[in-house]
Amino acid sequence: MPREITAFSNPLIKRVRGLRDKRHRREEGLFLAEGLRILAEAEETGLLPLWLFFADDSATHPIVTRLIAKVEGVGGEAIRTSRDILHKLSGKENPQTVIGVYPQPETGLDRIDRSRSGIWLVAQSLRDPGNLGTMLRTGDAVGAGGLILIDECVDPFSVEAIRASMGAVFTQAVAQASWEEFLPWLRSGEGQLIGAALDASVDYRTPDYAAPTFLLIGNEAQGLPPAYAAACDQRVRIPMLGKADSLNAAVACAVLAYQVLDWQSQ
Amino acid sequence: MPREITAFSNPLIKRVRGLRDKRHRREEGLFLAEGLRILAEAEETGLLPLWLFFADDSATHPIVTRLIAKVEGVGGEAIRTSRDILHKLSGKENPQTVIGVYPQPETGLDRIDRSRSGIWLVAQSLRDPGNLGTMLRTGDAVGAGGLILIDECVDPFSVEAIRASMGAVFTQAVAQASWEEFLPWLRSGEGQLIGAALDASVDYRTPDYAAPTFLLIGNEAQGLPPAYAAACDQRVRIPMLGKADSLNAAVACAVLAYQVLDWQSQ
Repeated sequence: MPREITAFSNPLIKRVRGLRDKRHRREEGLFLAEGLRILAEAEETGLLPLWLFFADDSATHPIVTRLIAKVEGVGGEAIRTSRDILHKLSGKENPQTVIGVYPQPETGLDRIDRSRSGIWLVAQSLRDPGNLGTMLRTGDAVGAGGLILIDECVDPFSVEAIRASMGAVFTQAVAQASWEEFLPWLRSGEGQLIGAALDASVDYRTPDYAAPTFLLIGNEAQGLPPAYAAACDQRVRIPMLGKADSLNAAVACAVLAYQVLDWQSQ
Repeated sequence: MPREITAFSNPLIKRVRGLRDKRHRREEGLFLAEGLRILAEAEETGLLPLWLFFADDSATHPIVTRLIAKVEGVGGEAIRTSRDILHKLSGKENPQTVIGVYPQPETGLDRIDRSRSGIWLVAQSLRDPGNLGTMLRTGDAVGAGGLILIDECVDPFSVEAIRASMGAVFTQAVAQASWEEFLPWLRSGEGQLIGAALDASVDYRTPDYAAPTFLLIGNEAQGLPPAYAAACDQRVRIPMLGKADSLNAAVACAVLAYQVLDWQSQ
């Protein structure tokens, strides 16, 4: 039977609310995901929340009742609560009817099995959680294996990143590494590194994108550092016909990723 | 000579701050843009702010001094102010050093000259200002003529949309219309309407994208209403290999737009 929590001062509510903060997420090794769609996606990949919070008025929704049963079936806890508390947990004006608390997966490079996919996304010093989540979502769509975050990127387990990923955080492997760790790891196995660079002379529709291809996208404001671009097997340019000098990072990533998919599926 | 404003209670500060609110923007017919890069982009297209606010410590920056001279040269006003007030105006934690106030352009369909470009973006009931701005930015990059907003979309002149557009709001035509206005207008001239639809049987790499092509992208959560999809000359599908059932709207728009550009530039 789900317990009920209605008090903002409840210690579990305070603790879970704290997961909106990166330091607490890291200390606890936990993160928040919201919404029936995303929690169902997680369930499909075999992942259940440690705690499942659901709105009082959603308890009879078939997905919610199924999630409650499954969570309780493996010793997790389902907690009936109010919309106000869900709002407090998620920080969203119109909170979703369910929120789950999940353990953060390991993010070492050893989690990346490059034989699993022909496409891997690599982002360097990414600043925007929406871009990060969108890259995960695109990665899922093109059948990529995952997203490797180089240097200081925004936290992949932030509420905003998880939201933008639309559940892809549960289907894509996520790794975090410095450039000094990443490059030797990359060169220790098969695969080519393709960097998006505004000053590249090669059009993105030209190269062979033999699997596995690692697509490297630089920071939103600065693009790739020259040394990183120089280490790529190939640097490619997406045509820019207007006044602006670059695309949104998640958009550039998607245009390249679909080109790679097109090449690999010929 | 720039005047100086340092008081939060100054009536102009209050008025400009009010432009973060949609109702005030509409009543005043004005909007805010921030940042040297975006203001310089506007300047390149011949647009100067009515009021230019700049941080005290940025007054000697060459772009700022040039903007001040130009704004004052056409009878506008340059206003030296504090970082605190810029923060108050933009709502951003780390405000840009300059903020400009611009008149909103007309957004009737009669602003769209379809002979000007082979690609036009059309978004229906778009909810996210970041997606809207990103579509404008992508439109600029592919050489689109502009973005037509169908039905109730988020305000294209919101601070968030302008920010995400990275200046493309100044280079792309923006129109707003209901579906009932748009469809007869579209059919009154040349051009094909291509809709992105998850259930379409045609792969997006298949069609002829003869100019002018109007790319129609539906609402983030619902996609295109069936009647709208049915009115398209062709509905196309972007491959989805993973668990997720859709791409981010701005990403889908970009993948299609680059495909159209590729086709039209062959």
